[in-house]
Amino acid sequence: MPSSRAGCSMADSITSRAPVPCFTEPASRRRTSVHAQAPLRPRRGIWRGVFRFQQRLRARGSKGDLRVNPTKKLIVVTCMDARLNNPFSQLGITEGQAHIIRNAGGLAKDSLRSIIISQRLLGTRKIAVFRHTDCGMTTFTTPELRQRIRDSDPGNDLLNEVDKIDFLEFKNLEKSLRDDVRFLRRTRSCSRRPPSRGGYIMSRRAR
Amino acid sequence: MPSSRAGCSMADSITSRAPVPCFTEPASRRRTSVHAQAPLRPRRGIWRGVFRFQQRLRARGSKGDLRVNPTKKLIVVTCMDARLNNPFSQLGITEGQAHIIRNAGGLAKDSLRSIIISQRLLGTRKIAVFRHTDCGMTTFTTPELRQRIRDSDPGNDLLNEVDKIDFLEFKNLEKSLRDDVRFLRRTRSCSRRPPSRGGYIMSRRAR
Repeated sequence: MPSSRAGCSMADSITSRAPVPCFTEPASRRRTSVHAQAPLRPRRGIWRGVFRFQQRLRARGSKGDLRVNPTKKLIVVTCMDARLNNPFSQLGITEGQAHIIRNAGGLAKDSLRSIIISQRLLGTRKIAVFRHTDCGMTTFTTPELRQRIRDSDPGNDLLNEVDKIDFLEFKNLEKSLRDDVRFLRRTRSCSRRPPSRGGYIMSRRAR
Repeated sequence: MPSSRAGCSMADSITSRAPVPCFTEPASRRRTSVHAQAPLRPRRGIWRGVFRFQQRLRARGSKGDLRVNPTKKLIVVTCMDARLNNPFSQLGITEGQAHIIRNAGGLAKDSLRSIIISQRLLGTRKIAVFRHTDCGMTTFTTPELRQRIRDSDPGNDLLNEVDKIDFLEFKNLEKSLRDDVRFLRRTRSCSRRPPSRGGYIMSRRAR
C-alpha cells in the first residue's frame, strides 16, 4: 500500500502580471520539479491571502488517507457567486464527502464534462443543483454581453470565439432550476441508472 | 436604496428520485412563489446534511449588505475534488471576496463562460488557477471513458453527445497548469487589459 502520509503544501507557483510578467518561459523551464521547490513568496498584497492558505493546510496535518471517491456519492452544483463562499463550506459536507462544481449560475448543463467524470469514474450517484436569488445571471443577455465586449475592445481578434459562447443566462430562477434538473434526468449518459437529483433555491436578499 | 435585510433561507426544494419521482409537473406548478414556501423536509438520510445547511445559514444572520462584485476582484479556479472542500474554504477568502469556479481538474479552459461573465460584468481582475497532485484527471483518456460508457450502456441514445465531449484529461500536472495560464494570457476576450494570473500546484498524497 502506498504511503498515506499527506500534508498539503503549495509546492510551486507560477505567476504573471502584465505588462511585466514575472513568469517567463525560460524561468519556467528551469523549474523542472514542482515538488522539490520552496514556494515563491507573494510579492503583492493581493496574493498574500492565497499564500496564507499554505500555512493553514500544513497546520491541518495529515488527511492523506482520504480516498478520491466522495464518500457521500454526492455532487453539489452551485454558483461561483462570492457571497456563497462561506455558506457552501458549511453545507455539512467536509473533506472527502462530495464533489463541488461551481460556475456562473450553478448550471448543471455547463458541467456535463465534470458530472460524467464524477459519475462514471468516481462513483457519485446523487446530484444537488443550487440556485440563489439576486444572481448576476439574471441581469444580462448573451447578445448584450457580446456587444459589450465588442464595444469595449474593437481590435480583439478573439471576438469570433466569444460569438460562439452561449452565456446561458436566465430570467426565471425557478424555471432555470427545473430545466436543469430535467436536463439531468434526460441525460442518461451521466449514469446507467438515473441518479437521484435535487434542485434547491436559496433566498438571499442583497442591496 | 433597497432593503439590505438578508437572512439566507432555503425557500424551495425540488427533488426527484427515479424510479418514483417525488417531484412531478403538476406539483411544481402549484408552487408558484419560491419564497413564500416553507422548505420541504428531507425524506431521505442522504439529503439531511444538505438541509441542515438551511438552519446554519439562518443562524449566521444578515449578510445582505454584501455586493455581488467580489471585493478582492479575484477568481479562483480549482478542482471539484472532494478532498479539497475544506482547504479551499480556508483559503483566506470569505464571503463576498472572490468568485470560486470548480470543475473536474480545475481547468480555466473549461470555465471561459464563467470567467468572461466574472470579468466583464462583475469587475474581477485576477485569476488564480489551482491544480493538485493525485488528481483523477490523470487516470484516464477521453477515448477510454467514451468506450467505458458505450460498453456499460449500449442502448444509450445519447452516446453521440458523449462523443462530442472532450474530457480534457491530462497526464502532466505542471504542463497542464502552464497551458491553462498561457490560455488565459492569450484569451484577451476575458478582459481588455490582461488580468493578473497565477498558477499553483498543491501537493497532496493519498493512498
